[in-house]
Amino acid sequence: MNQRIDRHSAGVFIIAATPFSSDGALDLDSTDRMVDFYLDCGVTGMTILGIMGEAPKLSGEESAQFARHVLDRVAGRVPVVVGVSGAGLDNMARLSHSVMDAGAAGVMVAPMPGLGTEVKLQGYFAQVCKALGPDVPVCVQDYPQTTGVQFSVETILQLTRDHDQIVMLKHEDWPGLNKLSRVRSESGTSDTPRLSILTGNAALFLPQELARGADGAMTGFAYPEMLVQVVDRHKSGDVDGAEDLFDAYLPMVRYEQQLGIGLAIRKEILHRRGVLAAPKVRAPGPSMTKADHEELTRLMNRLDRKLAALG
Amino acid sequence: MNQRIDRHSAGVFIIAATPFSSDGALDLDSTDRMVDFYLDCGVTGMTILGIMGEAPKLSGEESAQFARHVLDRVAGRVPVVVGVSGAGLDNMARLSHSVMDAGAAGVMVAPMPGLGTEVKLQGYFAQVCKALGPDVPVCVQDYPQTTGVQFSVETILQLTRDHDQIVMLKHEDWPGLNKLSRVRSESGTSDTPRLSILTGNAALFLPQELARGADGAMTGFAYPEMLVQVVDRHKSGDVDGAEDLFDAYLPMVRYEQQLGIGLAIRKEILHRRGVLAAPKVRAPGPSMTKADHEELTRLMNRLDRKLAALG
Amino acid sequence: MNQRIDRHSAGVFIIAATPFSSDGALDLDSTDRMVDFYLDCGVTGMTILGIMGEAPKLSGEESAQFARHVLDRVAGRVPVVVGVSGAGLDNMARLSHSVMDAGAAGVMVAPMPGLGTEVKLQGYFAQVCKALGPDVPVCVQDYPQTTGVQFSVETILQLTRDHDQIVMLKHEDWPGLNKLSRVRSESGTSDTPRLSILTGNAALFLPQELARGADGAMTGFAYPEMLVQVVDRHKSGDVDGAEDLFDAYLPMVRYEQQLGIGLAIRKEILHRRGVLAAPKVRAPGPSMTKADHEELTRLMNRLDRKLAALG
Amino acid sequence: MNQRIDRHSAGVFIIAATPFSSDGALDLDSTDRMVDFYLDCGVTGMTILGIMGEAPKLSGEESAQFARHVLDRVAGRVPVVVGVSGAGLDNMARLSHSVMDAGAAGVMVAPMPGLGTEVKLQGYFAQVCKALGPDVPVCVQDYPQTTGVQFSVETILQLTRDHDQIVMLKHEDWPGLNKLSRVRSESGTSDTPRLSILTGNAALFLPQELARGADGAMTGFAYPEMLVQVVDRHKSGDVDGAEDLFDAYLPMVRYEQQLGIGLAIRKEILHRRGVLAAPKVRAPGPSMTKADHEELTRLMNRLDRKLAALG
Repeated sequence: MNQRIDRHSAGVFIIAATPFSSDGALDLDSTDRMVDFYLDCGVTGMTILGIMGEAPKLSGEESAQFARHVLDRVAGRVPVVVGVSGAGLDNMARLSHSVMDAGAAGVMVAPMPGLGTEVKLQGYFAQVCKALGPDVPVCVQDYPQTTGVQFSVETILQLTRDHDQIVMLKHEDWPGLNKLSRVRSESGTSDTPRLSILTGNAALFLPQELARGADGAMTGFAYPEMLVQVVDRHKSGDVDGAEDLFDAYLPMVRYEQQLGIGLAIRKEILHRRGVLAAPKVRAPGPSMTKADHEELTRLMNRLDRKLAALG
Repeated sequence: MNQRIDRHSAGVFIIAATPFSSDGALDLDSTDRMVDFYLDCGVTGMTILGIMGEAPKLSGEESAQFARHVLDRVAGRVPVVVGVSGAGLDNMARLSHSVMDAGAAGVMVAPMPGLGTEVKLQGYFAQVCKALGPDVPVCVQDYPQTTGVQFSVETILQLTRDHDQIVMLKHEDWPGLNKLSRVRSESGTSDTPRLSILTGNAALFLPQELARGADGAMTGFAYPEMLVQVVDRHKSGDVDGAEDLFDAYLPMVRYEQQLGIGLAIRKEILHRRGVLAAPKVRAPGPSMTKADHEELTRLMNRLDRKLAALG
Repeated sequence: MNQRIDRHSAGVFIIAATPFSSDGALDLDSTDRMVDFYLDCGVTGMTILGIMGEAPKLSGEESAQFARHVLDRVAGRVPVVVGVSGAGLDNMARLSHSVMDAGAAGVMVAPMPGLGTEVKLQGYFAQVCKALGPDVPVCVQDYPQTTGVQFSVETILQLTRDHDQIVMLKHEDWPGLNKLSRVRSESGTSDTPRLSILTGNAALFLPQELARGADGAMTGFAYPEMLVQVVDRHKSGDVDGAEDLFDAYLPMVRYEQQLGIGLAIRKEILHRRGVLAAPKVRAPGPSMTKADHEELTRLMNRLDRKLAALG
Repeated sequence: MNQRIDRHSAGVFIIAATPFSSDGALDLDSTDRMVDFYLDCGVTGMTILGIMGEAPKLSGEESAQFARHVLDRVAGRVPVVVGVSGAGLDNMARLSHSVMDAGAAGVMVAPMPGLGTEVKLQGYFAQVCKALGPDVPVCVQDYPQTTGVQFSVETILQLTRDHDQIVMLKHEDWPGLNKLSRVRSESGTSDTPRLSILTGNAALFLPQELARGADGAMTGFAYPEMLVQVVDRHKSGDVDGAEDLFDAYLPMVRYEQQLGIGLAIRKEILHRRGVLAAPKVRAPGPSMTKADHEELTRLMNRLDRKLAALG
């Protein structure tokens, strides 16, 4: 019996990389190591096949295989959300049912590009919910930088009123702090069910987002232990301690957050930390130059010194 | 006492070119000739300084000068709408009041780029209406191809309910026939005031738009007499005759409708027809090649033959 | 031994719909009928799984099944190009090799979104050609309205100089008549190999494009016989006759060319003409209103009358 | 005799705010105070009427008035660059000549939207240089997030080879560290004249950019003294000290860098620091909520503590 995400899901749902070996094949050994690493870091959930990951570069078979492999390795210890965004609702429903049967906790759906009015957006999610059926919990991904689609607060609240299964918001509008404040204060009221809010955008504003009522983070930083500790400290009331720790990592957060190249950096760090056998990104994709490697080394060293100074 | 646009404005509001002499200066003699030409064609209104015109290439002084000159020449015979879209509301209000004082019938406002939710759109037009004051009638321009901003039918209806001064819609969403049908049938009801709907998009669908309830056209075709006759015939019940005439011009409508180069073609035709002294487009802007000129000649000749055959 | 597209491919490559039955399943009976219909119309080639078709809504298995089915039915009588554009080069190569083995004549590749400089574009096509291997002929699709990626003439010419396998351009930049003229005159020279140029954009400018040197059309009009006859008449020197016929169909060309809804219209016409059992478009997708149906009926009747009048 | 920017310009060119009083009028007293403040911070230059400032909300008269006022107050002590980007080349030339006559050091030009190929980009800057005449030094602004126009390294190098007056690059492509490295290493060679490179993007990567060869920064941080000290320390060889100082400010750099709201935050900080009489942003524009104000207070306090700890 697998866990499901719900309106109170909280903590750190790490966005998992998709490990490849140097020749580009799915690397399932590294996948096992990565899952264990994330769990050892204390994450409370995992998200795979995300929109900015390499899901579109996997074949249908590879996606299903990777999802099943991760779900088997996790074995119900934490909930696993699976990204299923795509052009056709039939494919989306098929993948969703397959991963839910295999133990997923819910699916994440970003709107397809071109939904330029809120009326269209609401129509789209009505179609999605109908295609998935009511038993599949949905995390709505609000990520206009990539999708080009903007959600108003009003639309987000309407979606959660209209659809019992829409239980979570992956918040990565940018800038979006006031949006987060409003969704927090205007959901969980008498007429609008609470939404779990997990924040993305590489955690660049995590302390601010927690102060404004986020339930945690859903993002892909290569030092998941920072995300976990910041969320834990904040929750326990040590708001300044949380932010002090965050600020020590901020130069690296900023560095990983670079669109495109950020994925290569993240995989390189996971490789250097012994998690991934190879930092391989599938073509077409970014790669790091010699200058990037030296810069990263320097930033990793500076991070070590800062953490040592923090004690 | 100048005419104002209102919720029943109808007919053909021709989008006027801004004539320049070969050296790029405003050409006020050609402006006079153009105004007379449009009036001779039987237009029921005129729109100047439109979004796809060359308004952004005029200095503030030139815009004011051109608007005053046209308004003087028209001398109240038909209503003149002035495009005032721009980045700042102070400038928009200043220009609007200046042209209304000089006899304009209303202003046309397109949303600024980046208004990606309907909530933002409605907030923007509330700001616009406040800045303009209640005495300035507004034509809302729905032109997503250029602005990147999409209006839902619901937003259009809400705007006209919320603001007495929003009386007209320049409809050029594309494709947009069903949108037009809905705005027509859902405005003019007990709770939603009627909107005048004039269609743009170079009139590519004018017969269909009239059949769906448009009040006329607001566009910039170089043969305004066609627009006038099609609207008149349609209104008098000769629906097939209207469409037969339209179809004869359709190859040219399609040709002028080309984004960018279409402006050069339109000015060239007005030049060949003796209206503009020069077909000059200000830099940076499109220009016609030798092949374009020959193609246009051929299309003009074919049009003449078709009109002769129609009788 | 299957035909391959080459630098002299010409005529009409019809963009094929993907037929679905009312419940959304692939409809292979209608597929057979559609292939026969296209061949009866005299097309010289066929293109399947195109970028604006419903290819992204097919699963990997369905794409492969549909392609094999069409290729079997065509049985080498005309060359078949297969659209293989997508996010990952591994998937693209896999699909390409599979359809080439099954008898395809070449593949069509549109650049992925975000290739905002010509240097990136050239790098992308170098990666594509390497991934496909030299034995797969490539048609480059220049379609900025959908991809957001613009090709200069210089880049197109460089691509064909750099890659022997890039033999065809699907020209649908818009407006693009001068671009077409330049590619025609600047390829097929001593240092730049000739490119076959087939035009898209629903054939809205077909007579002009043929006059400027296009080798034919690659588009999806529901009356393929018009495309075939216009190209044939033009080639035989009857330039005015070609354009007269085209102009009779132009109201319908314009009507089908509407983005989004155009696909539903095209399928509805093919349904009315007895080709498709159902006009089904997969979700999410456009559908026709009652007003659309009546409008289409009217336009089809007007077309019949015009063709009768042409004799 | 005013200073001109040249290929070796370096240091910190602060992007100046445009001060308004609470009623929205230009606030020239605050302008004086702001100019003095910037000079006291040790900036080596100033940039006014920038693309992300409020220049589009000024009337032509206000722009000219503000530019003259700043130039008078600066009185030649540091070079002042004036943003002149806009839709028409006539207006651009007029404003450029006016400010150069008043003592500006050069102008900054961003490409207009829609220049989707490098060929078009090069054509545009050729037109710009011709319109300005050879005596106006130009800083090219590479800012794709706002303009939608991408420059390749090759295009940047070509521009500086083709136009003697293009002497400076405002680098704010994102992410863009490798681009910066390449422009640095591939200009200043035997065939490509050196380009001064100043970086933007709110200085989020300033230490990395200096390490990769940037000559300094051209951005709008509300603590210009940090930018000045970081550049100075880096230049003097204290690379780690520069980065330590930068990292102390990084939470604030990140906070100000938020698109849209960042302008309100920047003006609020300048207001709190006693520079601007009012934090007014012209409509339509962002404003800060109560939560934003509290958050900012907290971040400013944390910054004070960090600076105290640094000693």
